[in-house]
Amino acid sequence: MVLINENFLQLQNSYLFSTIAQKRAAYQAAHPEAGIISLGIGDVTQPLCPAVVAAMHEAVNEMAQAATFRGYGPEQGYDFLRQAILEHDYLARGVTLDEDEIFISDGSKSDTGNIGDILGAANVVAITDPVYPVYVDTNVMAGREIKILPTNASNGFCAVPPDFHTDVVYLCSPNNPTGTVLNREQLTAWVDYAKREGALLLFDAAYKAFITDPELPQSIYEIPGAKECAIEFCSFSKTAGFTGTRCAFAVVPKALMGQTAAGEKVSLNALWNRRHTTKFNGTPYIVQRGAAAIYTPEGKAQVQQTLAYYRENAKLIKSALTDLGFTCFGGEHSPYVWLEAPAGMTSWDFFDLLLEQLNVVGTPGSGFGPSGEGYFRLTAFGSHEQTAEAIERFRNYFGKK
Amino acid sequence: MVLINENFLQLQNSYLFSTIAQKRAAYQAAHPEAGIISLGIGDVTQPLCPAVVAAMHEAVNEMAQAATFRGYGPEQGYDFLRQAILEHDYLARGVTLDEDEIFISDGSKSDTGNIGDILGAANVVAITDPVYPVYVDTNVMAGREIKILPTNASNGFCAVPPDFHTDVVYLCSPNNPTGTVLNREQLTAWVDYAKREGALLLFDAAYKAFITDPELPQSIYEIPGAKECAIEFCSFSKTAGFTGTRCAFAVVPKALMGQTAAGEKVSLNALWNRRHTTKFNGTPYIVQRGAAAIYTPEGKAQVQQTLAYYRENAKLIKSALTDLGFTCFGGEHSPYVWLEAPAGMTSWDFFDLLLEQLNVVGTPGSGFGPSGEGYFRLTAFGSHEQTAEAIERFRNYFGKK
Repeated sequence: MVLINENFLQLQNSYLFSTIAQKRAAYQAAHPEAGIISLGIGDVTQPLCPAVVAAMHEAVNEMAQAATFRGYGPEQGYDFLRQAILEHDYLARGVTLDEDEIFISDGSKSDTGNIGDILGAANVVAITDPVYPVYVDTNVMAGREIKILPTNASNGFCAVPPDFHTDVVYLCSPNNPTGTVLNREQLTAWVDYAKREGALLLFDAAYKAFITDPELPQSIYEIPGAKECAIEFCSFSKTAGFTGTRCAFAVVPKALMGQTAAGEKVSLNALWNRRHTTKFNGTPYIVQRGAAAIYTPEGKAQVQQTLAYYRENAKLIKSALTDLGFTCFGGEHSPYVWLEAPAGMTSWDFFDLLLEQLNVVGTPGSGFGPSGEGYFRLTAFGSHEQTAEAIERFRNYFGKK
Repeated sequence: MVLINENFLQLQNSYLFSTIAQKRAAYQAAHPEAGIISLGIGDVTQPLCPAVVAAMHEAVNEMAQAATFRGYGPEQGYDFLRQAILEHDYLARGVTLDEDEIFISDGSKSDTGNIGDILGAANVVAITDPVYPVYVDTNVMAGREIKILPTNASNGFCAVPPDFHTDVVYLCSPNNPTGTVLNREQLTAWVDYAKREGALLLFDAAYKAFITDPELPQSIYEIPGAKECAIEFCSFSKTAGFTGTRCAFAVVPKALMGQTAAGEKVSLNALWNRRHTTKFNGTPYIVQRGAAAIYTPEGKAQVQQTLAYYRENAKLIKSALTDLGFTCFGGEHSPYVWLEAPAGMTSWDFFDLLLEQLNVVGTPGSGFGPSGEGYFRLTAFGSHEQTAEAIERFRNYFGKK
């Protein structure tokens, strides 16, 4: 009988979101009158902007005529999208990249998982905690040793370089789930660490569009030397509401090298290009046209309008909870507010309290890893009305004490 | 410095299509007046059918309104598409499957590559020759031992089970590049082999829509026992012109088991579900709506019209070349005609002759593997006009002799 990849048997099952759904459903069944509000989802709710919609309609029409029909496109993505990314995501921030350093894909979840294909199984991987579980699971599947880098209130939930060697480090900034953002100094410390240790940084910038402070880097390549030590993952999911439309890109600089066990240097760009062209056949033309539309003047303005909508929710949640005495992280350049549960309560205790007393659903921090225990994630992706109502319930309940 | 996956260094570079492009460009530059016709591409040219276009426009409109907007969908695909597949691809042919055995994806290239993630590196993999190179390359990347199963004129370019053990067998029927189709008896022999040897069949049915003979199976599951030994890959690329729109599906039956080295049995469906939900985030909603439209009565009729267009080309190519004395395979339930080069000519000799004497471009069979030497692939994906003109040139040149 065919042999399986036994590393899969080491994966931990995550019951986080199914447990949340079950608890919510059970409460609703017992209290049919309760108007439950969810501030728990990590998914966008606002529609695609008009520029994207128009571009996709136009692309669908192109596919309907033989003269403009598009079959297989370049696996790495169309020039029109890669050039727009080079100009608006990078050159506008002082970062010069070549087109063949940009790889369009169907999502950063795919990219951050698949990147492991080009890396040796013997690399030791550092993963911050709490964390987006895909980094952990994909490395367990590959059989790699994982070292946990705890983040907590003492380091402001911002990962700091460890005092030991690792080969690969996953960083996510603005962070999911904690909403914290690494500033220039913190990123520089990571680039210094990578250079010193010969480590590869895998920088997940999926939430970069939420950054408003011009001093905060939106790309790791704004840090000198990062092109020699970092791969960056960006996505249209949270930037432009593409969670159900699927488009993202990875940046693999040509200056980035890996090595064989014998010390022979090999270009990671060449390896990723081979992986990407062998195991992937490109992102839909229609979707790439939609993505490119966010770089037009009207598209830019429309995307910012939607981002502003979510930012307003984040600001309301953070300021109200801070006023109520909660210790909060994130919420400023991020759609996520990460708050400390009241003293003595676990994440799940607090979940139950919010569900039962406020009829508000959030995400227990312990579901993102052990360092999340005692913390809780609220998200800004709801409607203004529901977010305001949820905050009102927080005020009524916690303001009275 | 980070360690690379050294298996990548064992990959052979393929210069097949770049060499074709270079030779064509050089000839065109030297003979600007030559009207070169390509019958070499494996990509569709006819537009998406009206039912698909309408469904995608409607889906784009849904994404433009908050009330109908879709964020993250189920990674395995939406019910509406999985149910349509169950009914029209399987139940209509007497095959009963459950919805959770169907996994919607962005392409069979991704699926046939990624499936290796759930399989052990120690499996011995059998690959027919000549072959679609992705099967080989993705297994080289994973470091697996590969055994080649040659096909040739003596077995009608139809792979037959070997007299030695293998753990995994890739089969493609209708075949790319040879255009040959495995009939019920041949598929039964493979299922018997798989059962006897405990092997897993990876059955690539990307070209099944070209089958017209009702006696020929379109799914491996039409063979009793196949659910216990086969994974099937299907695609909308060639069925409905989705090469640039990207939608496919894999079928992983729940009856299918793998095992650990210690002999513990593990469900491959469960492993693939974990892989698919961890390293993939679903196919675009818009694209899934487009794919589902091919199962409506008007969609079905329109798709058949386009397939008939290509079939007419295939029929013309095959009958004309046969009349001219060429030995041909495929072309009947397939868009590919596989022909023997004139005696004493290599595949590349024949390529040069066709380019220079007929101004027709095809694909040298040797580019698909050593058993393709002396053979040549022509495709039915061109326009009627260009195909007819190319055939006229064949008649003028080879008919004179």
